[in-house]
Amino acid sequence: MENIPENEIHERIARFQSILSKKNLDGALLMQNVDIYYFSGTLQSSILFIPREGNPLFMSLKNKERARAESPIRNIISLNGKKKVAETLKDFGYKKFHKLGIEMDVLPANLYLWLNQHLKTDLWENISSDILRLRMIKSDYEIDQFRKASQILRTGFLEIQEFIRPGMTELEVDGRLANIARREGHMGILRMRGWNQEITYAHVLSGESGAIPTFLNSPHGGAGNTPAMAQGAGFRKIKENEPIGIDFGVAVNGYIGDQFRTYVAGNLSKKLEKAHECSKDILETLSREAKPGTKCPDLFEIARKIAEQEGLEKYFMGHGESQAKFVGHGIGLEIDEYPVITPGFDIALKESMVMAIEPKFVFPGEGVVGLEDDYIVTDSGLERITLTDQKIMQVAK
Amino acid sequence: MENIPENEIHERIARFQSILSKKNLDGALLMQNVDIYYFSGTLQSSILFIPREGNPLFMSLKNKERARAESPIRNIISLNGKKKVAETLKDFGYKKFHKLGIEMDVLPANLYLWLNQHLKTDLWENISSDILRLRMIKSDYEIDQFRKASQILRTGFLEIQEFIRPGMTELEVDGRLANIARREGHMGILRMRGWNQEITYAHVLSGESGAIPTFLNSPHGGAGNTPAMAQGAGFRKIKENEPIGIDFGVAVNGYIGDQFRTYVAGNLSKKLEKAHECSKDILETLSREAKPGTKCPDLFEIARKIAEQEGLEKYFMGHGESQAKFVGHGIGLEIDEYPVITPGFDIALKESMVMAIEPKFVFPGEGVVGLEDDYIVTDSGLERITLTDQKIMQVAK
Repeated sequence: MENIPENEIHERIARFQSILSKKNLDGALLMQNVDIYYFSGTLQSSILFIPREGNPLFMSLKNKERARAESPIRNIISLNGKKKVAETLKDFGYKKFHKLGIEMDVLPANLYLWLNQHLKTDLWENISSDILRLRMIKSDYEIDQFRKASQILRTGFLEIQEFIRPGMTELEVDGRLANIARREGHMGILRMRGWNQEITYAHVLSGESGAIPTFLNSPHGGAGNTPAMAQGAGFRKIKENEPIGIDFGVAVNGYIGDQFRTYVAGNLSKKLEKAHECSKDILETLSREAKPGTKCPDLFEIARKIAEQEGLEKYFMGHGESQAKFVGHGIGLEIDEYPVITPGFDIALKESMVMAIEPKFVFPGEGVVGLEDDYIVTDSGLERITLTDQKIMQVAK
Repeated sequence: MENIPENEIHERIARFQSILSKKNLDGALLMQNVDIYYFSGTLQSSILFIPREGNPLFMSLKNKERARAESPIRNIISLNGKKKVAETLKDFGYKKFHKLGIEMDVLPANLYLWLNQHLKTDLWENISSDILRLRMIKSDYEIDQFRKASQILRTGFLEIQEFIRPGMTELEVDGRLANIARREGHMGILRMRGWNQEITYAHVLSGESGAIPTFLNSPHGGAGNTPAMAQGAGFRKIKENEPIGIDFGVAVNGYIGDQFRTYVAGNLSKKLEKAHECSKDILETLSREAKPGTKCPDLFEIARKIAEQEGLEKYFMGHGESQAKFVGHGIGLEIDEYPVITPGFDIALKESMVMAIEPKFVFPGEGVVGLEDDYIVTDSGLERITLTDQKIMQVAK
């Protein structure tokens, strides 16, 4: 078991405190498990108060000893019930607040109203977007975790190349991927921050099921095997000469690697092969063009233009009302992190951002083809983290 | 792919509308995916308005056609962006509200504040607890789904009895369970409603790792293989003569079966065998005693007393500050449903409630032993749904 290095936690807190200062906030009261983990190194039932200056206060609702074993934060204390939060803060000298940051994108409404009743502050401010911007820039430690995830992804993609046969259900392939992921150390879930968003280990989408849209903000979704989940693999049997799109995610020490490859038993049509070639072209072009300073909307436009030049714009990132308006997204402790490579996300790339870029083409009735790889923004362009070859993966008939 | 039967949806809505009437609410605006699925039969990005009287209005933000294919609701329309919600409601004759129900336990604070700005009502009321009480009582259709989940659970528990060997890691066993679950049709995730609660497919906890508490509101948690997840299986190798506690959950058409068995390669100590016997005794006693009308706190007290008589109270449902204060919980579309068999949940059982009852004993440094099975409340006591024998499962050395 590997803890987050001590200096990493202290640096994260220092960077956050300088934001709190700039925004003239007295501090931030963090309650979401992922944010608490990011700033403390431990994921316990707890409330984390980070003041503008001085030591954070980790108030543990359960399991204080484990928090102490995992986190370098000095003040880790027991909170006997949430109701004691104001009293406990007072004990540490925080009697009155002018402006406090909270995570309003994820905090449930009843907890928000409860805070309003039990903690006095003149103003609450939503601090989530600042946290997400801070989390955009990855440290060397974090990049190492993505590299470990990439090793597991490669193992999975190569092992199922030998495993897949026509006649097998999508769910059999999915189960095998889950098995590989866990065996190799995937932590067991993929976290999403977005309200109501949820995702399975993998999407295994054969033939036309690759073109069935879902509630997920993604170019593909799949039929699934029940309307209660309505995404991912189902009991559909894999056939020859159709695209088998496989999106596979694994998380190591919280950090999610996210990759997509297209498999086929036999051959794809010329149209689908051309679309796959176009995905590769988009990835290569973006790898050269994306540098610190490049704006996200410009990157989306480069990708869209390449698709357009190939006459494939209608199928780019989905089709019809379900066409997704992005070609990449930040990855980290959550799979839907900043930056988003989309027209509306007007932010310039910075060194050490980590993103999944996923140019895909969705053909109604035929399926999904394309590529997805994870990249680090470096001074000289994008450096690919994921390891599998960028080609159509042949499986035996 | 099996849709929820049409009459089932209409009955659920009718029962909910009679609650809305009783509470003098104009209607309820549902936004959480699980509640939307329960009342509509489709899980899409959408907002579902259920008026006190008349037809519900399903406002689809994406993927209207799939909603129409899965849901018997008559009014399924496109909502071009959330901002149009007030205007759309007006179009259907809902111009002004006096009191509206919303799901304040899960709705994010910023969405709640957005509603306050964009929809005029004199009062918001938290309707979640009413929805959860309504969802407590299961229909024949719902009970069928639990029975299907139980079949998969049995397959899994028997198949890994042949698979487990000392020297194997917990993660290898966990991966195999995930593989079986998906192959057999598990929908891919287990949903929890509680804020910050999350769970993996299975807990595979060997020896002392069964006694490591987590953020999860559960008697066991496990070390996991990273502080970023901090529960479930890890790289610990299974040894002879130690308890291997396996909690396994699968969901069929949304409905979660939840079961626990204790495995061993060799023998358990007399103390641990006695504790396992006590778990069985508690399940048998509760099966006889729990009838419509029995109060949940009384059931907890019966279980606690049996543990006490055996001198095992200190280890019952955890130990030390992490001892859980319940012995069972409702299951359904979420794994943390009503009723809760706990001193504080002062509700009487009713026919057709479905619960997982999980008397377990946790010995620090040694591990977790016990049983968990799923039951339906019937007139003559509890009927067991899960199928595996209630004994310690021997595996080869």
